[in-house]
Formats: sequence, structure tokens, C-alpha cells
Amino acid sequence: MQVDLGNVLDTAPAHGVSREALDRLDGRVAAAHDRIERGREAGEHGYESLNLPNSTDPAAIRDAVSRFDDPSAVVTVGIGGSALGAATLTDALESDVDAHYLDNVDPEAVERLLDSLDLASTVVNVVSRSGTTAETLANFLVVREAMADAGVDWTDRTFVTTGEEGNLRDLADKHDLPSLPVPDGVPGRFSVLSTVGLAAAALCGHDIEAVLEGAAAQEARLSDSLFDSPAYAYGAVSYALAERGMQQNAMMPYAESLETFSEWFAQLWAESLGKDGLGQTPLRALGATDQHSQLQLYRAGPRDKLVTLVRATERDDVAIPETDLDGLAYLGGSSLGDLLDAEFEATEASLAAAGRPSVRIELDRVDEYGLGELLYAMEAACVLYGELASVDTFVQPAVEWGKRAARGLLGGGDFEEADAVEEKSRLVVE
Amino acid sequence: MQVDLGNVLDTAPAHGVSREALDRLDGRVAAAHDRIERGREAGEHGYESLNLPNSTDPAAIRDAVSRFDDPSAVVTVGIGGSALGAATLTDALESDVDAHYLDNVDPEAVERLLDSLDLASTVVNVVSRSGTTAETLANFLVVREAMADAGVDWTDRTFVTTGEEGNLRDLADKHDLPSLPVPDGVPGRFSVLSTVGLAAAALCGHDIEAVLEGAAAQEARLSDSLFDSPAYAYGAVSYALAERGMQQNAMMPYAESLETFSEWFAQLWAESLGKDGLGQTPLRALGATDQHSQLQLYRAGPRDKLVTLVRATERDDVAIPETDLDGLAYLGGSSLGDLLDAEFEATEASLAAAGRPSVRIELDRVDEYGLGELLYAMEAACVLYGELASVDTFVQPAVEWGKRAARGLLGGGDFEEADAVEEKSRLVVE
Repeated sequence: MQVDLGNVLDTAPAHGVSREALDRLDGRVAAAHDRIERGREAGEHGYESLNLPNSTDPAAIRDAVSRFDDPSAVVTVGIGGSALGAATLTDALESDVDAHYLDNVDPEAVERLLDSLDLASTVVNVVSRSGTTAETLANFLVVREAMADAGVDWTDRTFVTTGEEGNLRDLADKHDLPSLPVPDGVPGRFSVLSTVGLAAAALCGHDIEAVLEGAAAQEARLSDSLFDSPAYAYGAVSYALAERGMQQNAMMPYAESLETFSEWFAQLWAESLGKDGLGQTPLRALGATDQHSQLQLYRAGPRDKLVTLVRATERDDVAIPETDLDGLAYLGGSSLGDLLDAEFEATEASLAAAGRPSVRIELDRVDEYGLGELLYAMEAACVLYGELASVDTFVQPAVEWGKRAARGLLGGGDFEEADAVEEKSRLVVE
Repeated sequence: MQVDLGNVLDTAPAHGVSREALDRLDGRVAAAHDRIERGREAGEHGYESLNLPNSTDPAAIRDAVSRFDDPSAVVTVGIGGSALGAATLTDALESDVDAHYLDNVDPEAVERLLDSLDLASTVVNVVSRSGTTAETLANFLVVREAMADAGVDWTDRTFVTTGEEGNLRDLADKHDLPSLPVPDGVPGRFSVLSTVGLAAAALCGHDIEAVLEGAAAQEARLSDSLFDSPAYAYGAVSYALAERGMQQNAMMPYAESLETFSEWFAQLWAESLGKDGLGQTPLRALGATDQHSQLQLYRAGPRDKLVTLVRATERDDVAIPETDLDGLAYLGGSSLGDLLDAEFEATEASLAAAGRPSVRIELDRVDEYGLGELLYAMEAACVLYGELASVDTFVQPAVEWGKRAARGLLGGGDFEEADAVEEKSRLVVE
């Protein structure tokens, strides 16, 4: 994996940050790296996430899911960080096992999914650290009932990932369900390299050892200079550009297999860095599709965006057949991959020519190893950005208010936040 | 459909725009409405889009696709506005016919899709106004060859939507393919209510007449005051908030069926309004899922966002089974829909309590009629915003540069933009 910062430098045609300013920033990167290393060594909350390539035991995960022989589908019931990491892996990689995610409480979507599954050959992978997340437990209760209705013993088909105590832990103990603990000190959005992200991938037959190897390769590259570490290079320039007005970061992979990765990145970036009135807003984009829409805004709208272009340099390809269609002969003999690459380079040049900064990230391939590299690098980039911005990267207080209000509204306790819901102002146009 | 502006008013706890300022803006809405009406009457480019509820003939669309009896799948080959409108409808509505979209040139994704289809019972719906869009034609050539390889006569399975002349028109004439013309004066991103958006929906068995009826109902509500038209209410407050620093607009439906609608909205908003250094950046969000991630940023990050909350007031529901799990008894007896509604209201109140503006849009139901209302209202809102901001809503010049560069790179002509690609600056960290 490599990161190319050429188009963020403040040189014509692109405009961003000067090389001299990056050199000065590098001194702060050294200090931030030192802080991160101390946090990791002490196993501090959050920093511990960056130790997962070594602390996660893939054999234990394989062993825990080995009870489920040849499933047709895996349904992961979780929300936010309990689902997106696993979805990033299983959506990117091909498998004969269908991976689904109940990460919302939309009744129509839940019903549609349950109707489409052969529950007798489906594994349910329930993920909640606390064991009390309302959405997750509600969905789990619905799935469990659907299994009962279908004559399937849910205790034979359920895998649990949860904390050391709580509802789900008790349930797993009572019914002797296979289960693994959520590691301590790892917030949900940083948990993809633990059992939270890897159990579903293992159930789908993916090489979770290679995911961890890719992550470890990027871990080994963390150093006290942004010029020596792809992860820090990305984190440092994102921060430097945000300081210079690029308050938005469009994550734009040129691979459909990485569409869910953009969502995962958006969660990581928004929830970690969006606090204290600060934070660079992640935009989810997809090349080449969004060239035909979002690019208009990125190139000609406000000067407030960094565009992150991601691609794999190796992939399976499809030849474009020769044609005598008028004006299209140039396509014959090339391939869809050639076309995609041309669009990638054209978009990058198009942004540069308009003075808009972009970063290019290249993986060798979208496979287990490459995903491990990419996911770890983005996590380390985010942690570095948080240090440089002096925010508390590993908390999410603004998410909690709404949880209390929703619980109060449903009669799950007396929360003053629920009262605020009743006081809504209205100005209705119908 | 109704739009509630209560939480954009500049009153505690929410902060946005004062009622007095909205009243003053309403004078400009009257002038903009007058301009829009004149454009519609004269059939001017772009404005013509708002006439589609009356000018589109659904019977002609039904007739044109009637040759295809009971398909198992419809593959729409198009990109940008040629695909997203149709996808918004077919992704929102249930059907026995699978709708797929080749709106990218990712070889691995194309191959995966073609491998999964029974081509003999698949309809290919090719959409390109010019008939020369590189991505669309390349994909079409690949699909055509796959059909030949499978022993399927592609001329029996192909429907064409294109302009009055060009490659695809010639092809349709030569092989007597069923086809319909793209209406004049309607940019791709405004074409969902024409054959471009409706042919795929008709092939999937949806009630396209009801889509047009819903749109017509919103068309009838356009008036010279934002307080009398849901569409203008939304367009005007989005503009007013952008002027006050809310440079981002998070479109957050609480329905998985509307996930593609957010993408469609993002295209409409970005490509229409992102120009001349202006433009409100659309963010694609999904409730309740993104409450567990993006909401942290929306509530506690920079004060630069409007959040648009969308829901349907009627839907199918799923009861949550009673449970004796510790602390979760409150969930039993309620439903997933109740939970989703509680989350919706909690998020809205959570934003208001932090002084962050939001708009609430409510449909009766996510069905053909409701989608027609919603899509038309967003288009009219966008056109109004463009008038208020004095931008040229219906052009997309910044998209063209990259197209020329890509074409040059592929040897499809001599374009100076391609040379810029070679001059890229590099600063690689690996």
C-alpha cells in the first residue's frame, strides 16, 4: 500500500499545504507518535485498538465458529461499530456464504430479509458489547422468534460476541452458545481487527490471518515521521488540509468492492473527530460513478474538500469487445479496467487543474491482506489526526443523548431527554 | 407529504434562520417562482423537467416494454442520471423482478453480476442520451457479448432509451429494438419522471401512473410563497441556511427503502448547485443506523450542517417479542416501527437541544405515489435554490473536463486535458 501526497502540495496546479509546512508539522507528528506509543504500551482505552494485529488470536475465532458447518448465510445483528467492520470485509470479498447485516430497525427491511433466508442453514452472529443495545436486542428477539416459527433451534445457530458480563453473556452461558468476548479498550468503530469484525469473515471462509498480517505490516510502518508511514502521511495531511479550510474529506474508492469501506471510514472519521466544534466531515463517494455527479461540486463548488482516491493496482479484468459503432472504435481492444484507470487518473488531474487537493492511496489488491493494510492505516491515521487536533478520539458523548431520549420515549426509564422531544417547535407546510 | 420547518427557526433551542428573515426571503421566492413558471411555459432547458408529470405518457412506456413477458431481472446500463432515478424507484419498491444497475465500469462487479443472471429471461435497459457515453457503451458491449456466449439473441432482450439520433438510435432502428426517446430539455439528474426513470420501474411491475400522480400533486402545490408549497419550503430554507453557514445538508431517511433516494438527492444537489464556488454539499445518511456514528459529528462538530429527516408515517410493522432478558422488558409489546420512530424523534430533539437545525419531511407511505411526491418536490426545491443562489442549475461543466481527459487517455482523440494527467506531482510514502 502506498500514499501519494503529490496533489496536496501547494504547487501549481494543485493547492493545499506547502512542503515546508508539512516539514514543520512533522515535528508534531513525532510527539503525537510518542503519545500513541505510550498509550499502546499502557493498554489505554482506544490506543489499545492499534495493538489488535498482535493481540487478536485468529485461531480462537476459527475455533469458536467451527461448530457451524457450511452455513448458507450469516446474519450479523449489531449496529454501528458492531456491524460496519465485518460488513466492510464480507462486502469486499467474494464468498459462497451470503453475509447480511441487521444494523437498523426498519421493520420492512427486517421482514424482507427474514423471508428470504433458509433459517435452518443460517448462522446468527449477535454483537453487542453491553448486551443491552436496544436496536440489536430488538432485532435479535425478532430473529429468534422467526427461527422458532420455522422450527429451527436458535441455540444451535447463534454465535455471540459481547462483553464479559451482561444479558448476552448470561444467555450464552445458559444455553452453551459459542461466544467470544469484545476486547477491552477497543471502541466499536476500531474493532474490525478483533472478533467483532473477524467472526463474520471467518464464517464466510475468508483468510482472517491475512487480514491481520496486512494490518501488522502497516503497524510496523508507524514511525516518528509522516514521510515514513503511509498511515501517518494520510492522517497528517488530512489534518493539515482541514486546518486550511478543507473541512470535508470525500472518500472515493474506484472499486465497487470498497463501497462499504467508505461507510466504515465515514463512521471512523465522524465519530472519532467530530467533537468540540471540530471535525472533518467524511463524504462517501464511489468512482467512477460519482464522477458523473459529485465531481461537479468537488471541482467547482466551495474550496472546502480533500478528495481521497483509492484503487487497487491489480484486479481481474474484462475485455471490451471490438465494435463498429460510430465513434466507439477506440474502446475495442481495451478493457473495463483500462477505462476505470483512465477515469481515475482523469479525475485526479481534473481536480488538480482546478487547484483542488487530492490524495492517492494504492493497494496491490482488494484481498484480505490489502484490506488489513487499508483498515489499520485508516485507524492509525485517525488516531494521529485526533492527537494533532487535541480531541478525545475515543469517546462519543453526542451519540448518548439521543439513546437516552429514545429509551425514555419507549418507556425504558425516566430520562429528561425524552421531555425535550415533546417540546418540539412546529412550522408545517403541507 | 409535509415539510416541518419548526427546527430551523432561530428560536431556542434550535438555531437557524429567524421567522422574519424567512418572511423577507418569501418575496424572492415569489420572483423565483415567476421565473420558473416562465421557463416551464417556454419549455426552456431544465425548466422543462418540472413539466414531466403532465408531459410523460405512461401508456407509451408500458406499451414499449410490453414485448418483454415476465422477465426475471432487468439490468439497466447507464451512468449518473441515466441510472439513479430508476434505481431510486426500484430499490424502494418490492418486486419479483430483480433490478440491477451497471452504472460503473468495475470489471469485477460487472463479471459478478453477469455470472449471477439467467440472461435468457433478463431484459437489458440501455440508457444514454448521446449514445456515446463511454462507460455505458463499454458495459453494453460486454453484456451483449455475454448474451451471445450464452446463446441468447440480444436483440430480443434489449430496450433502448436514447436521443433522437446517434449510435444507439441507429442500433435500435437497425434491429427493430423497442425504444423510447429521452425528452428534450431534461438533464439526466432531472429525468426520473420520464422514460429514463420509469421504464425500469414499469418492467418491475410498479404503478408508474401513481408515481406521476404523486409528482403532479406536488406540482400543483408550487406557488409564489414558500409557506404554501412543501417543495419551495424545503428549497428556500436549505438556501437560507447555506447562506448562514450550513454548507452541508445531510439527507437522512429513516427507511432502508430510501437509501438510494439519498444517493439520487446527492446527485441532484451536488451537480445542480455545486458551481461558481457555491453549493451546499449533500451528505448521504441513513437512520437509525447513522445515529450511532455520524450523529456525533452532526451534533458536536462544526456548525455547518442542516440535517433533513425523512420518514413515512405508515408502514408494515414487526412486533418485538416479550422477553425476560434483564433490563429489556420495556421493548416487549412494542414494535420495530415504534423503536424507529422513537429514534427519529430522539435524533431530531438531540440536534435541536444542541442548537443544530433540522427539517422534518413526512410522507404517508413509501409507495409509488409517495415517491412521486418526494422526487418532484426535491427537484422543484433544487430549482428554486438555484434561482435564489443565481447559479445555472441545469449545466455541469466541471464533469466534462474529466470525460475529455479519460477519452484522450484511451486513445479516443487528441485532448489537451489528457496531457495534464502526465504532469502529475508525486510525493509517495510507502
